[in-house]
Amino acid sequence: MMDAAPDPNAQPAYDEAWFASRATAGVRRLKAYDPGHDLVALRERFGELALVELGSNENPYGASPAARGAILDELHALHRYPDPRGGVLKRALAEKHGVDACRIVLGNGSHELLMQLAQVFAGPGDEVVFSQFGFAVFALATQAAGASACVVPALGVDDPMPLGHDLDAIAAAITPATKLVYVANPNNPTGTWFARERFARFMAAVPPDVIVVMDEAYAEMADAAAQTDARPLLEQHANLVITRTFSKGYALAGMRVGYAMAAPELVAVMERVRESFNVNGPALAACAAALGDEAHLAWSCERNAEQRVALSEALRSRGLRVPPSQTNFVLVELGERTSKIEAALLERGVVLRPMRGYGLPTYSRITIGTRDENRRLLAALDEVLA
Amino acid sequence: MMDAAPDPNAQPAYDEAWFASRATAGVRRLKAYDPGHDLVALRERFGELALVELGSNENPYGASPAARGAILDELHALHRYPDPRGGVLKRALAEKHGVDACRIVLGNGSHELLMQLAQVFAGPGDEVVFSQFGFAVFALATQAAGASACVVPALGVDDPMPLGHDLDAIAAAITPATKLVYVANPNNPTGTWFARERFARFMAAVPPDVIVVMDEAYAEMADAAAQTDARPLLEQHANLVITRTFSKGYALAGMRVGYAMAAPELVAVMERVRESFNVNGPALAACAAALGDEAHLAWSCERNAEQRVALSEALRSRGLRVPPSQTNFVLVELGERTSKIEAALLERGVVLRPMRGYGLPTYSRITIGTRDENRRLLAALDEVLA
Repeated sequence: MMDAAPDPNAQPAYDEAWFASRATAGVRRLKAYDPGHDLVALRERFGELALVELGSNENPYGASPAARGAILDELHALHRYPDPRGGVLKRALAEKHGVDACRIVLGNGSHELLMQLAQVFAGPGDEVVFSQFGFAVFALATQAAGASACVVPALGVDDPMPLGHDLDAIAAAITPATKLVYVANPNNPTGTWFARERFARFMAAVPPDVIVVMDEAYAEMADAAAQTDARPLLEQHANLVITRTFSKGYALAGMRVGYAMAAPELVAVMERVRESFNVNGPALAACAAALGDEAHLAWSCERNAEQRVALSEALRSRGLRVPPSQTNFVLVELGERTSKIEAALLERGVVLRPMRGYGLPTYSRITIGTRDENRRLLAALDEVLA
Repeated sequence: MMDAAPDPNAQPAYDEAWFASRATAGVRRLKAYDPGHDLVALRERFGELALVELGSNENPYGASPAARGAILDELHALHRYPDPRGGVLKRALAEKHGVDACRIVLGNGSHELLMQLAQVFAGPGDEVVFSQFGFAVFALATQAAGASACVVPALGVDDPMPLGHDLDAIAAAITPATKLVYVANPNNPTGTWFARERFARFMAAVPPDVIVVMDEAYAEMADAAAQTDARPLLEQHANLVITRTFSKGYALAGMRVGYAMAAPELVAVMERVRESFNVNGPALAACAAALGDEAHLAWSCERNAEQRVALSEALRSRGLRVPPSQTNFVLVELGERTSKIEAALLERGVVLRPMRGYGLPTYSRITIGTRDENRRLLAALDEVLA
């Protein structure tokens, strides 16, 4: 009986396990990305003004007024499909970065592009290499594509760049089965970074048929002195893809726009899988307008850099370990009581991002808020730690 | 020499063919979706008011004012990520359709969901069945997933539903390798449809382990008497997925929102691959508001139905063959001169959608415009045909 062929007309169980059994290998084992707390519910509970939202690395200084104005100008045309070529935005990006527009592909957030890069270039039997504590989407993208993840141990906690990418070890982990390498600079959730010069040595060590995806989501927030920007390497390395986003420096997380810069021929292959209307109309307009308001970007990033120094020092002065960061967040080591501290802060309307799901259960990630938000965070933290 | 192992350190060609050779099997042969004319360029050339845009099946009556108002209310929060659960919109959809919210998954347009259904449930070695002249995304989704397409011949031109889905033939084409079937009702680009009763017989003939995706993008525009709506079958058939969109009846093509309704357990598997912020913040708000304005939807669809009759009759009175339609477009047979007629209309600022890429080179697809737009189309057509 056990060996009888299944009856094709028998009613399946139709539970999640059955549907998963009909899915591709990658999806069968996939778990969805954890977006953190239910902020809609928390806003209802505490009220929007009372809540201190420091869990999602949003930019509290808000979008350029020019972006809002551009959305107003689109309200008469909501019934029209967006420009499938994204021409206006791509030309603005091309000018900003000094690259040809055919080197740019637009995404529904850089999240979509990071997923599609694995979907396009990796499958069952292929290896994808990335760092422990690297951006969470790297693992998801690898899994969804059905490829094998090779997770390279991060630098130690006592390294000058604690928990950061070990580029030598990443290069050494590449095998003939490796199709893709993901790195992030600066990296989320660690805040760590490396200089372009160091990355150039890494690229020289990577076999030329392996595609390296460099996520620079926080590029605009890094100090110029840190020299993290990999753009100058694009011309030399046709196997390099740089992803960026409008969610962080440009404070347009709600609009879902990211982009990748790469060799035109690689972009042409990505365009095959891009859904033609993947970026919405008001989003295209808002981002093009935001690019034109360099003063707003600079103002916003300067405020963030000031508060990054101030908040890091304030936390350290309380005896807490805070690794260095070039982003709009810091990791803070809270030790064995991390979960309890996070819960107590949440009761006071202060939202941090727990790091248990990242394998860092003794740390919390804190978005750098405005001066007022950081004060409220510190006041609540003092209460809780007392 | 020919048999020597390739040198892994040799510089690859880095042309599109090389990048495609590094891609998965599906992507290697994939061609991008053709979104039609470059409307941005045409608007610049003719001016927005002079152009008669009848190529994209957009809804010329525009979105509900409530949708525009909802976007205004979001402008202060562009720096916040959208609600990853889409709670407000899902609750509004659940209420509208009388289904539980756990039966709904949101997409960046139904395009994204149609692509993901193949990505999840079909891969190399699997078959996907759909009709000749079925919605273009069915073939793209199948190809991108690396699955094999089984394209079933459409009904003949002399059938009462010319070029429509042959449901008997589709059911008969299912083999043990079939994972997915795509149907559309009404279908784009043919405008054809079938009654729910007919579809219920089809579902009864489909093996219960094959997932049937029913695209109802034009559902709101079909006459009630046509009884196309498959929602009543959802409860009985856990292998049925219905996709819908806000792009057509709700006139929100620019916002990119679609959704699928299915068994909660199937939705749970789709949620694994959904990017958590796949629908943008203003889009979530606009769609929830649009759902609340039933009067606007009814008004807009009534105008469309009136003009559908009027335009079809006007075209037929000119001796042109126009198959029946339950959508906001009609197919019209223009014969051997189709390309020339389309080009001459374009010179006059009237944009139709050529059907060559769909294998229907003697037809054009014409979006049903407002009374004024249809008058301008007919005037230009009379000039061209004279």
